[in-house]
Amino acid sequence: MIGIVKEFQLIESFFTGRAQSRKDVVMGIGDDCAIVQLNANKSIAISCDTLVENVHFFPDMPAKDLGYKSLAVNLSDLASMGAEPAWMTLALTLPEVDETWLAEFSEGLFEIAEYYGVALIGGDTTRGPRAITITINGQLPKDVGLTRCGAKNGDWIYVTGSLGDSALGLDILRDKAAVDGEDRAYLVNRHYRPTPRVLAGQSLRTIASSAIDISDGIMSDIQHVIKSSQMGAVINVDRLPLSEQLVRNTTADMALSYALTGGEDYELLFTVPEAQKGALEMALAETGVRFTQIGQICTGGQLTLLNENKPFEPVNLGFEHFN
Amino acid sequence: MIGIVKEFQLIESFFTGRAQSRKDVVMGIGDDCAIVQLNANKSIAISCDTLVENVHFFPDMPAKDLGYKSLAVNLSDLASMGAEPAWMTLALTLPEVDETWLAEFSEGLFEIAEYYGVALIGGDTTRGPRAITITINGQLPKDVGLTRCGAKNGDWIYVTGSLGDSALGLDILRDKAAVDGEDRAYLVNRHYRPTPRVLAGQSLRTIASSAIDISDGIMSDIQHVIKSSQMGAVINVDRLPLSEQLVRNTTADMALSYALTGGEDYELLFTVPEAQKGALEMALAETGVRFTQIGQICTGGQLTLLNENKPFEPVNLGFEHFN
Repeated sequence: MIGIVKEFQLIESFFTGRAQSRKDVVMGIGDDCAIVQLNANKSIAISCDTLVENVHFFPDMPAKDLGYKSLAVNLSDLASMGAEPAWMTLALTLPEVDETWLAEFSEGLFEIAEYYGVALIGGDTTRGPRAITITINGQLPKDVGLTRCGAKNGDWIYVTGSLGDSALGLDILRDKAAVDGEDRAYLVNRHYRPTPRVLAGQSLRTIASSAIDISDGIMSDIQHVIKSSQMGAVINVDRLPLSEQLVRNTTADMALSYALTGGEDYELLFTVPEAQKGALEMALAETGVRFTQIGQICTGGQLTLLNENKPFEPVNLGFEHFN
Repeated sequence: MIGIVKEFQLIESFFTGRAQSRKDVVMGIGDDCAIVQLNANKSIAISCDTLVENVHFFPDMPAKDLGYKSLAVNLSDLASMGAEPAWMTLALTLPEVDETWLAEFSEGLFEIAEYYGVALIGGDTTRGPRAITITINGQLPKDVGLTRCGAKNGDWIYVTGSLGDSALGLDILRDKAAVDGEDRAYLVNRHYRPTPRVLAGQSLRTIASSAIDISDGIMSDIQHVIKSSQMGAVINVDRLPLSEQLVRNTTADMALSYALTGGEDYELLFTVPEAQKGALEMALAETGVRFTQIGQICTGGQLTLLNENKPFEPVNLGFEHFN
């Protein structure tokens, strides 16, 4: 039925005209492939994330926020490698053509794409249950990038920003927590619009020994670092950076559990050798991003949580994490 | 629930160990991003296609064929640009973890990935309605690539292979056509396992003036070429390459409609200037791919169908095409 083709061509009209122009995009949307060029001294970082309705977001999530978040979570992957955002493809599956929804979704998507200079170079629009897959491409100086596997014994463990806000924001949206006013707006916004630490990641390239973004909660994500690096880690939970909005809207125990296991913070977790601490202060001061030392890499392969130097067991909040 | 994370980590085990190794993949699956390197005199071609259950394939499609086809349709996009396949990401959404299905799907995917030297460098596995999004990356010599927009007045129009088999194959699967034995197997296989014309595309890079892959049927896809090139076209339907399996299992009128409007052939449609016809014969003879001249580019912006030099109107078979 030609009607369906035409209908889905309409979807494309929300995206083709708005794409960021970049000199390295030789051919953008409109042919069978896009063609991009790379500076000779660069490598390409590539990552891919899917958001599925009723799994990663609820049907009532504002479309503008969903557009924003779809790209933000991919940018966070680039940030954790220290890569500079460049190009993306968008695979958008929708049950029907809803022009209001599409206008809002694309507005949120392009808001963050323009901020970070990401060109939309291609994609596919299909009919089906609502889902968004973005594949993002970034650039890195050749042979310089952050990975999960470089942490060494004695390196200090840091995180950017504050932890746990997003998970409390989600609980508020699910009516599992009651928070009103500005605090509610702040916490829900931290869930709907995570800040990818793109500039911080780039500034850490030659300073950090390892880095990862916190998508499943710090307790889960640090396991990837210590496993890949064949190390252990001690985290001082009393040092975890908590926002005042988190602290004043839940108990102290719950706040720590949100911070340790809540997930979707999209902050960076990274490790820095003692000798690089001065360089770190200077580099992150320039970006204006808050960062906090929360523990230290050790040998032995285990993760140890300490609260004021005593063993600590977090309250299990039973968060569901899907890959 | 940690159980769900573990379950989906199991999915990844079907893909991580099997990935093709390539020297230009600095870092493959397992970190936040993959990192790849590009030769200084190359550009990158990027394309993205989604297959959704009950839209692009039926639940009873053999998983091995689905794995094969998911990559084949993306490779066809690279073929139409003349690009050499390199890397892919796979976003796989599944309602549940079915190990038999996963083993078969990954077997089909890696069968074609290994044949064309494509490295799986990353992806995302999520819970949800079954869908597959592959983003493919290919390499092109800088400033040399096939597009839809270069057709000139008088250029000859060609297609590779034969047309219409896939659409009759689909009708057989839907019980809209009754074909048995080897012909059935051939036609269904043409639907389930299209042959991306990767080598033919590369050999056409400096010979063809435009190219596109035939995904929606030649009548629809040639519109993209003449619109992009600001030209018209005459197609001689009596010259369309039809397989003997198509011809002997349907009427002459129906066979032409399958070939013109059926879609999913994933053959290449390309245009060649008169002066390049000799070069074309030599180049495609080396690849062993059948190619047929089916018409000519003209001015005026219209598509004209002729059957033995008389105006021709195809039977409307009402194929549904989704983008």
